[in-house]
Amino acid sequence: MAEPPLFGRVALIGVGLIGSSLARVIKRDSLASEVVACARTQATCDRVLELEIVDHATTDPAAAAAGADLVMICTPLGVYAEVVAALAPELKPGAILSEVGSVKYTVIRDLAPLVPDGVHFVPGHPVAGTERSGPEAGFAELFQGRWCILTPPEGVDPGAVERVAELWRRAGMMIEIMDPEHHDQVLAITSHLPHLIAYTIVGTAADLEEQMKSEVIKFAAGGFRDFTRIAASDPVMWRDIFLNNREAVLEMLDRFTEDLTALQRAIRGGEGEVLQDLFTRTRELRRGVIEAKQA
Amino acid sequence: MAEPPLFGRVALIGVGLIGSSLARVIKRDSLASEVVACARTQATCDRVLELEIVDHATTDPAAAAAGADLVMICTPLGVYAEVVAALAPELKPGAILSEVGSVKYTVIRDLAPLVPDGVHFVPGHPVAGTERSGPEAGFAELFQGRWCILTPPEGVDPGAVERVAELWRRAGMMIEIMDPEHHDQVLAITSHLPHLIAYTIVGTAADLEEQMKSEVIKFAAGGFRDFTRIAASDPVMWRDIFLNNREAVLEMLDRFTEDLTALQRAIRGGEGEVLQDLFTRTRELRRGVIEAKQA
Repeated sequence: MAEPPLFGRVALIGVGLIGSSLARVIKRDSLASEVVACARTQATCDRVLELEIVDHATTDPAAAAAGADLVMICTPLGVYAEVVAALAPELKPGAILSEVGSVKYTVIRDLAPLVPDGVHFVPGHPVAGTERSGPEAGFAELFQGRWCILTPPEGVDPGAVERVAELWRRAGMMIEIMDPEHHDQVLAITSHLPHLIAYTIVGTAADLEEQMKSEVIKFAAGGFRDFTRIAASDPVMWRDIFLNNREAVLEMLDRFTEDLTALQRAIRGGEGEVLQDLFTRTRELRRGVIEAKQA
Repeated sequence: MAEPPLFGRVALIGVGLIGSSLARVIKRDSLASEVVACARTQATCDRVLELEIVDHATTDPAAAAAGADLVMICTPLGVYAEVVAALAPELKPGAILSEVGSVKYTVIRDLAPLVPDGVHFVPGHPVAGTERSGPEAGFAELFQGRWCILTPPEGVDPGAVERVAELWRRAGMMIEIMDPEHHDQVLAITSHLPHLIAYTIVGTAADLEEQMKSEVIKFAAGGFRDFTRIAASDPVMWRDIFLNNREAVLEMLDRFTEDLTALQRAIRGGEGEVLQDLFTRTRELRRGVIEAKQA
Protein backbone atom coordinates (compact mmCIF):
# COMPACT_ATOMS: atom_id res chain seq x y z
CA MET A 1 0.00 0.00 0.00
CA ALA A 2 1.26 3.50 -0.86
CA GLU A 3 2.32 5.75 2.04
CA PRO A 4 -0.22 8.48 2.85
CA PRO A 5 0.94 11.97 1.75
CA LEU A 6 2.79 14.11 4.31
CA PHE A 7 0.21 16.87 4.03
CA GLY A 8 -3.34 17.38 2.87
CA ARG A 9 -3.55 20.77 1.19
CA VAL A 10 -0.31 22.70 0.65
CA ALA A 11 -0.36 26.37 -0.42
CA LEU A 12 2.77 27.76 -2.07
CA ILE A 13 2.70 31.55 -1.92
CA GLY A 14 5.10 32.51 -4.71
CA VAL A 15 6.19 30.06 -7.40
CA GLY A 16 9.57 31.36 -8.52
CA LEU A 17 12.73 29.24 -8.51
CA ILE A 18 12.24 27.87 -4.98
CA GLY A 19 8.44 27.64 -4.88
CA SER A 20 8.15 25.97 -8.27
CA SER A 21 11.00 23.55 -7.48
CA LEU A 22 9.24 22.54 -4.26
CA ALA A 23 5.97 22.14 -6.21
CA ARG A 24 7.77 19.76 -8.56
CA VAL A 25 9.12 17.71 -5.63
CA ILE A 26 5.67 17.50 -4.03
CA LYS A 27 4.08 16.40 -7.33
CA ARG A 28 6.83 13.90 -8.16
CA ASP A 29 6.60 12.13 -4.81
CA SER A 30 2.90 12.79 -4.04
CA LEU A 31 3.80 14.51 -0.77
CA ALA A 32 0.47 16.36 -0.55
CA SER A 33 -3.06 15.47 -1.57
CA GLU A 34 -3.53 18.91 -3.12
CA VAL A 35 -1.16 21.76 -4.05
CA VAL A 36 -2.34 25.29 -4.69
CA ALA A 37 -0.11 28.06 -6.00
CA CYS A 38 -0.51 31.76 -5.36
CA ALA A 39 1.17 34.10 -7.86
CA ARG A 40 1.12 37.86 -8.29
CA THR A 41 -0.14 37.73 -11.88
CA GLN A 42 -2.74 35.66 -13.70
CA ALA A 43 -0.12 34.94 -16.37
CA THR A 44 2.06 33.13 -13.82
CA CYS A 45 -1.01 31.24 -12.53
CA ASP A 46 -1.74 30.10 -16.07
CA ARG A 47 1.89 29.10 -16.60
CA VAL A 48 2.16 26.88 -13.50
CA LEU A 49 -1.10 25.17 -14.44
CA GLU A 50 0.25 24.52 -17.96
CA LEU A 51 3.44 23.14 -16.42
CA GLU A 52 1.19 20.80 -14.37
CA ILE A 53 3.23 21.33 -11.21
CA VAL A 54 0.22 22.42 -9.07
CA ASP A 55 -3.47 21.50 -8.90
CA HIS A 56 -4.88 25.01 -8.57
CA ALA A 57 -3.57 28.55 -8.91
CA THR A 58 -4.88 31.90 -7.70
CA THR A 59 -3.70 35.49 -7.34
CA ASP A 60 -5.40 35.72 -3.92
CA PRO A 61 -3.21 34.64 -0.95
CA ALA A 62 -6.25 34.27 1.33
CA ALA A 63 -7.99 31.91 -1.11
CA ALA A 64 -4.79 29.86 -1.44
CA ALA A 65 -4.33 29.58 2.33
CA ALA A 66 -7.97 28.69 3.11
CA GLY A 67 -8.08 25.13 4.43
CA ALA A 68 -4.35 24.54 3.89
CA ASP A 69 -2.40 22.27 6.25
CA LEU A 70 0.87 23.89 5.20
CA VAL A 71 1.33 27.40 3.84
CA MET A 72 4.84 27.97 2.49
CA ILE A 73 5.78 31.56 1.63
CA CYS A 74 8.27 31.68 -1.25
CA THR A 75 8.06 35.37 -2.24
CA PRO A 76 10.74 38.06 -1.92
CA LEU A 77 11.08 39.20 1.73
CA GLY A 78 9.67 42.65 0.97
CA VAL A 79 6.09 41.39 0.52
CA TYR A 80 6.05 38.95 3.44
CA ALA A 81 4.15 41.25 5.84
CA GLU A 82 1.53 42.13 3.24
CA VAL A 83 1.04 38.48 2.23
CA VAL A 84 0.78 37.19 5.80
CA ALA A 85 -1.63 39.98 6.80
CA ALA A 86 -3.83 38.97 3.84
CA LEU A 87 -3.86 35.23 4.50
CA ALA A 88 -3.70 35.07 8.31
CA PRO A 89 -7.49 35.25 8.83
CA GLU A 90 -7.90 32.16 6.61
CA LEU A 91 -5.33 29.99 8.43
CA LYS A 92 -7.03 27.08 10.13
CA PRO A 93 -6.09 26.02 13.70
CA GLY A 94 -3.24 23.51 13.61
CA ALA A 95 -2.00 24.74 10.21
CA ILE A 96 1.73 25.25 9.69
CA LEU A 97 3.02 28.55 8.34
CA SER A 98 6.53 28.27 6.93
CA GLU A 99 8.75 30.26 4.57
CA VAL A 100 12.06 30.00 2.73
CA GLY A 101 13.64 33.44 3.14
CA SER A 102 17.40 34.04 3.10
CA VAL A 103 17.23 36.26 6.21
CA LYS A 104 15.74 35.06 9.47
CA TYR A 105 16.04 37.53 12.38
CA THR A 106 14.04 40.47 10.99
CA VAL A 107 11.61 38.11 9.25
CA ILE A 108 10.70 36.36 12.49
CA ARG A 109 10.57 39.64 14.41
CA ASP A 110 8.14 41.12 11.87
CA LEU A 111 5.99 38.07 11.14
CA ALA A 112 5.58 36.38 14.50
CA PRO A 113 3.04 38.95 15.80
CA LEU A 114 0.88 38.41 12.69
CA VAL A 115 0.58 34.63 13.15
CA PRO A 116 -2.79 33.67 14.70
CA ASP A 117 -2.90 31.58 17.89
CA GLY A 118 -3.05 27.88 17.15
CA VAL A 119 -1.01 28.23 13.94
CA HIS A 120 2.54 26.78 14.00
CA PHE A 121 5.18 29.17 12.67
CA VAL A 122 8.27 27.32 11.34
CA PRO A 123 10.72 29.63 9.51
CA GLY A 124 13.22 27.89 7.24
CA HIS A 125 15.86 28.46 4.61
CA PRO A 126 16.69 25.85 1.97
CA VAL A 127 20.26 26.87 1.05
CA ALA A 128 20.06 26.09 -2.66
CA GLY A 129 19.52 28.08 -5.79
CA THR A 130 20.68 29.11 -9.22
CA GLU A 131 20.92 32.54 -10.82
CA ARG A 132 17.69 31.88 -12.73
CA SER A 133 14.24 32.93 -11.53
CA GLY A 134 10.59 32.28 -12.27
CA PRO A 135 8.47 29.10 -12.42
CA GLU A 136 10.18 27.76 -15.54
CA ALA A 137 13.59 27.91 -13.85
CA GLY A 138 12.58 25.45 -11.14
CA PHE A 139 13.50 21.75 -11.08
CA ALA A 140 12.90 19.00 -8.54
CA GLU A 141 16.60 18.20 -8.03
CA LEU A 142 17.50 21.75 -6.91
CA PHE A 143 17.60 20.79 -3.23
CA GLN A 144 19.40 17.45 -3.54
CA GLY A 145 22.37 17.10 -1.17
CA ARG A 146 22.07 20.67 0.17
CA TRP A 147 21.30 21.93 3.67
CA CYS A 148 18.00 23.36 4.91
CA ILE A 149 18.30 25.56 7.98
CA LEU A 150 15.24 25.75 10.25
CA THR A 151 15.03 28.50 12.89
CA PRO A 152 11.92 27.64 14.95
CA PRO A 153 10.93 30.30 17.51
CA GLU A 154 10.94 29.23 21.17
CA GLY A 155 7.86 27.27 22.19
CA VAL A 156 6.78 26.17 18.72
CA ASP A 157 5.34 22.64 18.48
CA PRO A 158 8.19 20.15 17.80
CA GLY A 159 5.81 18.01 15.76
CA ALA A 160 5.22 20.89 13.34
CA VAL A 161 8.97 21.50 13.03
CA GLU A 162 9.47 17.80 12.29
CA ARG A 163 6.83 17.80 9.54
CA VAL A 164 8.53 20.74 7.78
CA ALA A 165 11.91 19.03 8.25
CA GLU A 166 10.53 15.84 6.72
CA LEU A 167 9.24 17.74 3.66
CA TRP A 168 12.73 19.11 2.98
CA ARG A 169 14.31 15.72 3.66
CA ARG A 170 12.05 14.23 1.01
CA ALA A 171 13.37 16.96 -1.32
CA GLY A 172 16.86 15.57 -0.67
CA MET A 173 18.02 18.09 1.92
CA MET A 174 19.89 17.71 5.20
CA ILE A 175 18.44 19.60 8.17
CA GLU A 176 20.19 22.00 10.56
CA ILE A 177 18.44 23.80 13.42
CA MET A 178 19.91 27.24 14.10
CA ASP A 179 19.41 30.45 16.01
CA PRO A 180 18.05 33.18 13.64
CA GLU A 181 20.82 35.68 14.40
CA HIS A 182 23.52 33.09 13.88
CA HIS A 183 21.89 32.04 10.61
CA ASP A 184 22.07 35.62 9.40
CA GLN A 185 25.78 35.89 10.22
CA VAL A 186 26.67 32.63 8.48
CA LEU A 187 24.67 33.55 5.38
CA ALA A 188 26.16 37.05 5.34
CA ILE A 189 29.56 35.56 4.54
CA THR A 190 28.52 32.47 2.52
CA SER A 191 25.88 34.06 0.36
CA HIS A 192 25.06 37.74 0.84
CA LEU A 193 28.58 39.18 0.65
CA PRO A 194 29.53 37.03 -2.38
CA HIS A 195 26.46 38.32 -4.19
CA LEU A 196 27.17 41.91 -3.17
CA ILE A 197 30.71 41.68 -4.50
CA ALA A 198 29.65 40.01 -7.74
CA TYR A 199 27.01 42.69 -8.32
CA THR A 200 29.63 45.37 -7.62
CA ILE A 201 32.33 44.12 -10.00
CA VAL A 202 29.86 43.48 -12.80
CA GLY A 203 28.55 47.02 -12.18
CA THR A 204 32.11 48.36 -12.34
CA ALA A 205 32.53 46.65 -15.72
CA ALA A 206 29.15 47.90 -16.94
CA ASP A 207 30.31 51.47 -16.28
CA LEU A 208 33.37 51.15 -18.55
CA GLU A 209 33.36 52.94 -21.89
CA GLU A 210 31.49 51.06 -24.65
CA GLN A 211 34.54 49.69 -26.52
CA MET A 212 36.02 48.27 -23.32
CA LYS A 213 32.65 46.88 -22.23
CA SER A 214 32.30 44.82 -25.42
CA GLU A 215 35.76 43.39 -24.81
CA VAL A 216 34.89 42.54 -21.23
CA ILE A 217 32.03 40.44 -22.57
CA LYS A 218 34.20 38.85 -25.25
CA PHE A 219 36.95 37.79 -22.87
CA ALA A 220 34.74 36.90 -19.90
CA ALA A 221 36.14 33.36 -19.79
CA GLY A 222 39.08 34.48 -17.67
CA GLY A 223 37.01 34.43 -14.47
CA PHE A 224 34.55 37.28 -14.95
CA ARG A 225 31.80 35.06 -16.38
CA ASP A 226 31.25 33.37 -13.01
CA PHE A 227 30.62 36.78 -11.46
CA THR A 228 28.16 37.72 -14.22
CA ARG A 229 26.24 34.54 -13.48
CA ILE A 230 25.94 35.34 -9.78
CA ALA A 231 25.08 38.96 -10.59
CA ALA A 232 22.19 37.77 -12.79
CA SER A 233 20.20 36.71 -9.71
CA ASP A 234 16.78 38.19 -9.06
CA PRO A 235 17.11 41.97 -8.33
CA VAL A 236 14.06 42.33 -6.06
CA MET A 237 14.85 39.24 -4.02
CA TRP A 238 18.40 40.45 -3.45
CA ARG A 239 17.40 44.05 -2.72
CA ASP A 240 15.21 42.70 0.08
CA ILE A 241 17.96 40.44 1.44
CA PHE A 242 20.39 43.35 1.82
CA LEU A 243 17.74 45.59 3.38
CA ASN A 244 16.84 42.86 5.89
CA ASN A 245 20.31 41.61 6.80
CA ARG A 246 21.95 45.02 6.91
CA GLU A 247 23.97 44.69 10.13
CA ALA A 248 25.54 41.30 9.44
CA VAL A 249 26.31 42.17 5.80
CA LEU A 250 27.93 45.49 6.74
CA GLU A 251 30.03 43.78 9.40
CA MET A 252 31.32 41.13 6.98
CA LEU A 253 31.86 43.81 4.35
CA ASP A 254 34.09 45.71 6.80
CA ARG A 255 36.24 42.63 7.32
CA PHE A 256 36.43 42.01 3.58
CA THR A 257 37.40 45.62 2.85
CA GLU A 258 40.19 45.49 5.43
CA ASP A 259 41.55 42.31 3.83
CA LEU A 260 41.28 43.81 0.36
CA THR A 261 43.19 46.90 1.46
CA ALA A 262 45.97 44.71 2.83
CA LEU A 263 46.17 42.83 -0.47
CA GLN A 264 46.19 46.10 -2.41
CA ARG A 265 49.14 47.23 -0.34
CA ALA A 266 50.94 43.92 -1.01
CA ILE A 267 50.45 44.31 -4.77
CA ARG A 268 51.58 47.93 -4.70
CA GLY A 269 54.68 46.96 -2.69
CA GLY A 270 55.43 43.91 -4.83
CA GLU A 271 55.24 41.61 -1.79
CA GLY A 272 55.05 38.29 -3.61
CA GLU A 273 55.25 36.19 -0.46
CA VAL A 274 52.16 37.81 1.07
CA LEU A 275 50.20 37.06 -2.09
CA GLN A 276 51.42 33.49 -2.46
CA ASP A 277 50.74 32.77 1.19
CA LEU A 278 47.12 33.92 0.97
CA PHE A 279 46.54 32.13 -2.36
CA THR A 280 47.83 28.92 -0.79
CA ARG A 281 45.62 29.24 2.32
CA THR A 282 42.46 29.76 0.25
CA ARG A 283 43.10 26.45 -1.53
CA GLU A 284 42.67 24.65 1.78
CA LEU A 285 39.21 26.09 2.30
CA ARG A 286 38.28 24.90 -1.19
CA ARG A 287 39.35 21.40 -0.22
CA GLY A 288 37.00 21.61 2.79
CA VAL A 289 34.10 22.57 0.52
CA ILE A 290 34.87 19.66 -1.82
CA GLU A 291 35.14 17.20 1.08
CA ALA A 292 31.82 18.44 2.48
CA LYS A 293 30.31 17.69 -0.97
CA GLN A 294 29.15 21.30 -1.28
CA ALA A 295 31.25 22.15 -4.33
CA MET B 1 46.75 12.12 -48.52
CA ALA B 2 47.01 13.46 -44.96
CA GLU B 3 47.84 17.15 -44.49
CA PRO B 4 51.43 17.78 -43.40
CA PRO B 5 51.76 18.82 -39.73
CA LEU B 6 51.82 22.58 -38.98
CA PHE B 7 55.20 22.30 -37.28
CA GLY B 8 58.18 19.96 -37.20
CA ARG B 9 59.46 19.89 -33.63
CA VAL B 10 57.46 21.72 -30.93
CA ALA B 11 58.89 22.34 -27.46
CA LEU B 12 56.44 23.01 -24.62
CA ILE B 13 58.27 24.64 -21.72
CA GLY B 14 55.94 23.92 -18.82
CA VAL B 15 53.21 21.27 -18.97
CA GLY B 16 50.65 22.44 -16.46
CA LEU B 17 46.98 23.04 -17.31
CA ILE B 18 47.67 25.06 -20.47
CA GLY B 19 50.82 23.32 -21.69
CA SER B 20 49.45 19.82 -21.22
CA SER B 21 46.12 20.76 -22.84
CA LEU B 22 47.98 22.11 -25.86
CA ALA B 23 50.08 18.91 -25.95
CA ARG B 24 46.86 16.91 -26.08
CA VAL B 25 45.53 19.01 -28.97
CA ILE B 26 48.78 18.64 -30.92
CA LYS B 27 48.79 14.85 -30.37
CA ARG B 28 45.09 14.44 -31.18
CA ASP B 29 45.33 16.28 -34.49
CA SER B 30 48.97 15.47 -35.36
CA LEU B 31 49.84 19.16 -35.57
CA ALA B 32 53.58 18.56 -35.09
CA SER B 33 55.91 15.80 -36.16
CA GLU B 34 57.49 15.75 -32.70
CA VAL B 35 56.54 17.24 -29.31
CA VAL B 36 58.99 17.61 -26.46
CA ALA B 37 58.01 18.72 -22.96
CA CYS B 38 60.22 20.52 -20.49
CA ALA B 39 59.21 20.26 -16.82
CA ARG B 40 60.86 21.43 -13.62
CA THR B 41 60.96 17.96 -12.06
CA GLN B 42 61.76 14.49 -13.37
CA ALA B 43 58.50 13.26 -11.79
CA THR B 44 56.48 15.55 -14.07
CA CYS B 45 58.55 14.43 -17.07
CA ASP B 46 57.74 10.83 -16.20
CA ARG B 47 54.07 11.66 -15.77
CA VAL B 48 53.62 13.33 -19.17
CA LEU B 49 55.38 10.42 -20.84
CA GLU B 50 53.04 7.98 -19.06
CA LEU B 51 50.08 10.09 -20.18
CA GLU B 52 51.44 9.75 -23.74
CA ILE B 53 50.77 13.39 -24.56
CA VAL B 54 54.37 14.16 -25.66
CA ASP B 55 57.14 12.24 -27.44
CA HIS B 56 60.02 13.28 -25.19
CA ALA B 57 60.44 15.04 -21.86
CA THR B 58 63.40 16.76 -20.22
CA THR B 59 64.14 19.02 -17.28
CA ASP B 60 66.55 21.06 -19.42
CA PRO B 61 64.94 23.96 -21.34
CA ALA B 62 67.95 24.23 -23.67
CA ALA B 63 67.72 20.55 -24.65
CA ALA B 64 63.99 20.92 -25.26
CA ALA B 65 64.43 24.00 -27.45
CA ALA B 66 67.30 22.62 -29.53
CA GLY B 67 66.12 22.16 -33.11
CA ALA B 68 62.53 23.19 -32.32
CA ASP B 69 60.47 25.04 -34.93
CA LEU B 70 58.16 26.34 -32.20
CA VAL B 71 59.02 26.90 -28.55
CA MET B 72 55.94 27.66 -26.44
CA ILE B 73 56.57 28.86 -22.89
CA CYS B 74 53.77 27.76 -20.54
CA THR B 75 55.37 28.37 -17.12
CA PRO B 76 54.40 30.94 -14.47
CA LEU B 77 55.55 34.44 -15.50
CA GLY B 78 58.13 34.60 -12.71
CA VAL B 79 60.49 32.11 -14.38
CA TYR B 80 60.17 33.41 -17.96
CA ALA B 81 63.44 35.37 -17.95
CA GLU B 82 65.41 32.49 -16.49
CA VAL B 83 63.91 29.99 -18.94
CA VAL B 84 64.47 32.17 -22.01
CA ALA B 85 68.04 32.99 -20.97
CA ALA B 86 68.71 29.25 -20.72
CA LEU B 87 67.18 28.24 -24.04
CA ALA B 88 67.94 31.27 -26.25
CA PRO B 89 71.38 30.01 -27.38
CA GLU B 90 69.73 26.83 -28.70
CA LEU B 91 67.03 28.56 -30.76
CA LYS B 92 67.61 27.96 -34.44
CA PRO B 93 67.22 30.77 -37.01
CA GLY B 94 63.64 30.99 -38.22
CA ALA B 95 62.27 29.35 -35.05
CA ILE B 96 59.19 30.84 -33.38
CA LEU B 97 59.27 31.70 -29.69
CA SER B 98 55.79 32.07 -28.21
CA GLU B 99 54.19 32.02 -24.76
CA VAL B 100 50.78 31.97 -23.09
CA GLY B 101 51.09 34.41 -20.18
CA SER B 102 48.16 36.32 -18.70
CA VAL B 103 50.12 39.60 -18.70
CA LYS B 104 51.67 41.03 -21.86
CA TYR B 105 53.31 44.45 -21.44
CA THR B 106 55.99 43.65 -18.85
CA VAL B 107 56.54 40.21 -20.39
CA ILE B 108 57.34 41.65 -23.80
CA ARG B 109 59.45 44.44 -22.32
CA ASP B 110 61.54 41.93 -20.36
CA LEU B 111 61.79 39.12 -22.92
CA ALA B 112 62.21 40.93 -26.24
CA PRO B 113 65.88 41.84 -25.56
CA LEU B 114 66.68 38.17 -24.84
CA VAL B 115 65.33 36.87 -28.18
CA PRO B 116 68.17 36.18 -30.68
CA ASP B 117 68.11 37.82 -34.13
CA GLY B 118 66.36 35.65 -36.68
CA VAL B 119 63.97 34.17 -34.11
CA HIS B 120 60.30 35.25 -34.37
CA PHE B 121 58.80 36.36 -31.04
CA VAL B 122 54.99 35.98 -30.96
CA PRO B 123 53.48 36.56 -27.49
CA GLY B 124 50.00 35.22 -26.98
CA HIS B 125 47.33 34.54 -24.36
CA PRO B 126 44.75 31.78 -24.77
CA VAL B 127 41.93 33.09 -22.53
CA ALA B 128 40.81 29.75 -21.14
CA GLY B 129 41.37 27.82 -17.97
CA THR B 130 39.98 26.07 -14.96
CA GLU B 131 40.92 26.29 -11.29
CA ARG B 132 42.87 23.04 -11.59
CA SER B 133 46.58 22.83 -12.31
CA GLY B 134 49.21 20.32 -13.36
CA PRO B 135 49.54 17.95 -16.34
CA GLU B 136 46.66 15.71 -15.24
CA ALA B 137 44.27 18.67 -15.19
CA GLY B 138 44.69 19.38 -18.90
CA PHE B 139 42.24 18.33 -21.62
CA ALA B 140 42.15 18.95 -25.36
CA GLU B 141 38.77 20.73 -25.32
CA LEU B 142 39.90 23.45 -22.89
CA PHE B 143 40.32 26.03 -25.65
CA GLN B 144 37.18 25.26 -27.66
CA GLY B 145 35.11 28.37 -28.47
CA ARG B 146 37.34 30.73 -26.47
CA TRP B 147 39.47 33.65 -27.61
CA CYS B 148 43.25 33.70 -28.03
CA ILE B 149 44.78 37.17 -27.90
CA LEU B 150 48.05 37.65 -29.79
CA THR B 151 50.16 40.76 -29.13
CA PRO B 152 52.93 40.61 -31.75
CA PRO B 153 55.65 43.28 -31.34
CA GLU B 154 56.10 45.76 -34.20
CA GLY B 155 58.08 44.38 -37.12
CA VAL B 156 57.62 40.66 -36.36
CA ASP B 157 57.17 38.41 -39.40
CA PRO B 158 53.42 38.16 -40.25
CA GLY B 159 53.95 34.59 -41.43
CA ALA B 160 55.17 33.56 -37.97
CA VAL B 161 52.16 35.27 -36.33
CA GLU B 162 49.87 33.43 -38.72
CA ARG B 163 51.41 30.04 -37.88
CA VAL B 164 50.85 30.60 -34.15
CA ALA B 165 47.32 31.83 -34.86
CA GLU B 166 46.64 28.69 -36.91
CA LEU B 167 47.81 26.45 -34.06
CA TRP B 168 45.30 28.05 -31.69
CA ARG B 169 42.58 27.94 -34.34
CA ARG B 170 43.14 24.20 -34.64
CA ALA B 171 42.65 24.05 -30.86
CA GLY B 172 39.22 25.62 -31.40
CA MET B 173 40.05 29.23 -30.55
CA MET B 174 39.13 32.52 -32.17
CA ILE B 175 41.99 34.97 -32.69
CA GLU B 176 42.21 38.62 -31.66
CA ILE B 177 45.24 40.84 -32.27
CA MET B 178 45.75 43.43 -29.56
CA ASP B 179 48.13 46.00 -28.19
CA PRO B 180 49.92 44.62 -25.07
CA GLU B 181 48.90 47.50 -22.79
CA HIS B 182 45.28 47.27 -23.86
CA HIS B 183 45.36 43.50 -23.29
CA ASP B 184 46.53 44.06 -19.75
CA GLN B 185 43.71 46.54 -19.02
CA VAL B 186 41.02 44.24 -20.41
CA LEU B 187 42.34 41.24 -18.49
CA ALA B 188 42.67 43.30 -15.30
CA ILE B 189 38.90 43.62 -15.16
CA THR B 190 37.84 40.30 -16.76
CA SER B 191 40.26 38.02 -14.97
CA HIS B 192 42.76 39.52 -12.55
CA LEU B 193 40.37 41.58 -10.40
CA PRO B 194 37.80 38.73 -10.17
CA HIS B 195 40.54 36.41 -8.94
CA LEU B 196 41.84 39.01 -6.47
CA ILE B 197 38.36 39.47 -5.02
CA ALA B 198 37.69 35.75 -4.81
CA TYR B 199 41.01 35.17 -3.06
CA THR B 200 40.18 38.00 -0.64
CA ILE B 201 36.71 36.85 0.38
CA VAL B 202 37.79 33.25 0.79
CA GLY B 203 40.67 34.56 2.91
CA THR B 204 38.21 36.61 4.98
CA ALA B 205 36.20 33.45 5.62
CA ALA B 206 39.33 31.43 6.41
CA ASP B 207 40.14 33.93 9.17
CA LEU B 208 36.81 33.41 10.96
CA GLU B 209 36.78 31.50 14.23
CA GLU B 210 36.79 27.68 13.78
CA GLN B 211 33.08 27.05 14.50
CA MET B 212 32.00 29.68 12.00
CA LYS B 213 34.50 28.42 9.43
CA SER B 214 33.06 24.92 9.48
CA GLU B 215 29.61 26.40 8.90
CA VAL B 216 30.91 28.49 6.02
CA ILE B 217 32.03 25.27 4.35
CA LYS B 218 28.76 23.50 5.14
CA PHE B 219 26.55 26.22 3.70
CA ALA B 220 28.80 27.20 0.78
CA ALA B 221 26.03 26.48 -1.73
CA GLY B 222 24.58 29.97 -1.25
CA GLY B 223 27.13 31.54 -3.60
CA PHE B 224 30.42 31.18 -1.72
CA ARG B 225 31.37 27.89 -3.38
CA ASP B 226 31.93 29.62 -6.75
CA PHE B 227 34.43 31.93 -5.07
CA THR B 228 36.25 29.01 -3.44
CA ARG B 229 36.59 27.43 -6.86
CA ILE B 230 38.18 30.55 -8.35
CA ALA B 231 40.36 30.97 -5.25
CA ALA B 232 41.71 27.43 -5.72
CA SER B 233 43.70 28.53 -8.78
CA ASP B 234 47.48 28.09 -8.85
CA PRO B 235 49.10 30.32 -6.18
CA VAL B 236 52.43 30.89 -7.94
CA MET B 237 50.87 31.63 -11.30
CA TRP B 238 48.55 34.19 -9.74
CA ARG B 239 51.24 35.77 -7.57
CA ASP B 240 53.20 36.44 -10.75
CA ILE B 241 50.19 37.85 -12.58
CA PHE B 242 49.54 40.44 -9.86
CA LEU B 243 53.22 41.37 -9.63
CA ASN B 244 53.40 41.83 -13.41
CA ASN B 245 50.11 43.66 -14.01
CA ARG B 246 50.29 45.86 -10.95
CA GLU B 247 49.25 49.20 -12.48
CA ALA B 248 46.18 47.98 -14.37
CA VAL B 249 44.99 45.82 -11.47
CA LEU B 250 45.36 48.65 -8.94
CA GLU B 251 43.47 51.02 -11.23
CA MET B 252 40.54 48.61 -11.65
CA LEU B 253 40.63 47.87 -7.94
CA ASP B 254 40.24 51.60 -7.22
CA ARG B 255 37.13 51.75 -9.39
CA PHE B 256 35.73 48.62 -7.76
CA THR B 257 36.37 49.96 -4.24
CA GLU B 258 34.59 53.21 -5.07
CA ASP B 259 31.57 51.29 -6.34
CA LEU B 260 31.59 49.02 -3.30
CA THR B 261 31.66 52.02 -0.97
CA ALA B 262 28.64 53.48 -2.75
CA LEU B 263 26.76 50.22 -2.35
CA GLN B 264 27.74 49.99 1.31
CA ARG B 265 26.26 53.46 1.82
CA ALA B 266 23.05 52.40 0.03
CA ILE B 267 22.68 49.36 2.29
CA ARG B 268 23.39 51.40 5.41
CA GLY B 269 20.83 54.00 4.33
CA GLY B 270 18.24 51.41 3.31
CA GLU B 271 18.15 52.79 -0.26
CA GLY B 272 16.32 49.93 -1.93
CA GLU B 273 16.02 51.67 -5.30
CA VAL B 274 19.78 52.13 -5.65
CA LEU B 275 20.28 48.42 -4.99
CA GLN B 276 17.53 47.23 -7.29
CA ASP B 277 18.70 49.54 -10.07
CA LEU B 278 22.27 48.16 -9.97
CA PHE B 279 21.09 44.54 -9.68
CA THR B 280 18.93 45.07 -12.78
CA ARG B 281 21.75 46.65 -14.81
CA THR B 282 24.15 43.79 -14.06
CA ARG B 283 21.64 41.32 -15.52
CA GLU B 284 22.04 43.02 -18.90
CA LEU B 285 25.77 42.42 -18.94
CA ARG B 286 25.10 38.75 -18.19
CA ARG B 287 22.84 38.61 -21.23
CA GLY B 288 25.71 39.99 -23.32
CA VAL B 289 28.04 37.27 -22.05
CA ILE B 290 25.46 34.57 -22.87
CA GLU B 291 24.84 36.01 -26.36
CA ALA B 292 28.61 36.08 -27.00
CA LYS B 293 28.67 32.36 -26.06
CA GLN B 294 31.23 33.05 -23.35
CA ALA B 295 29.02 31.95 -20.44
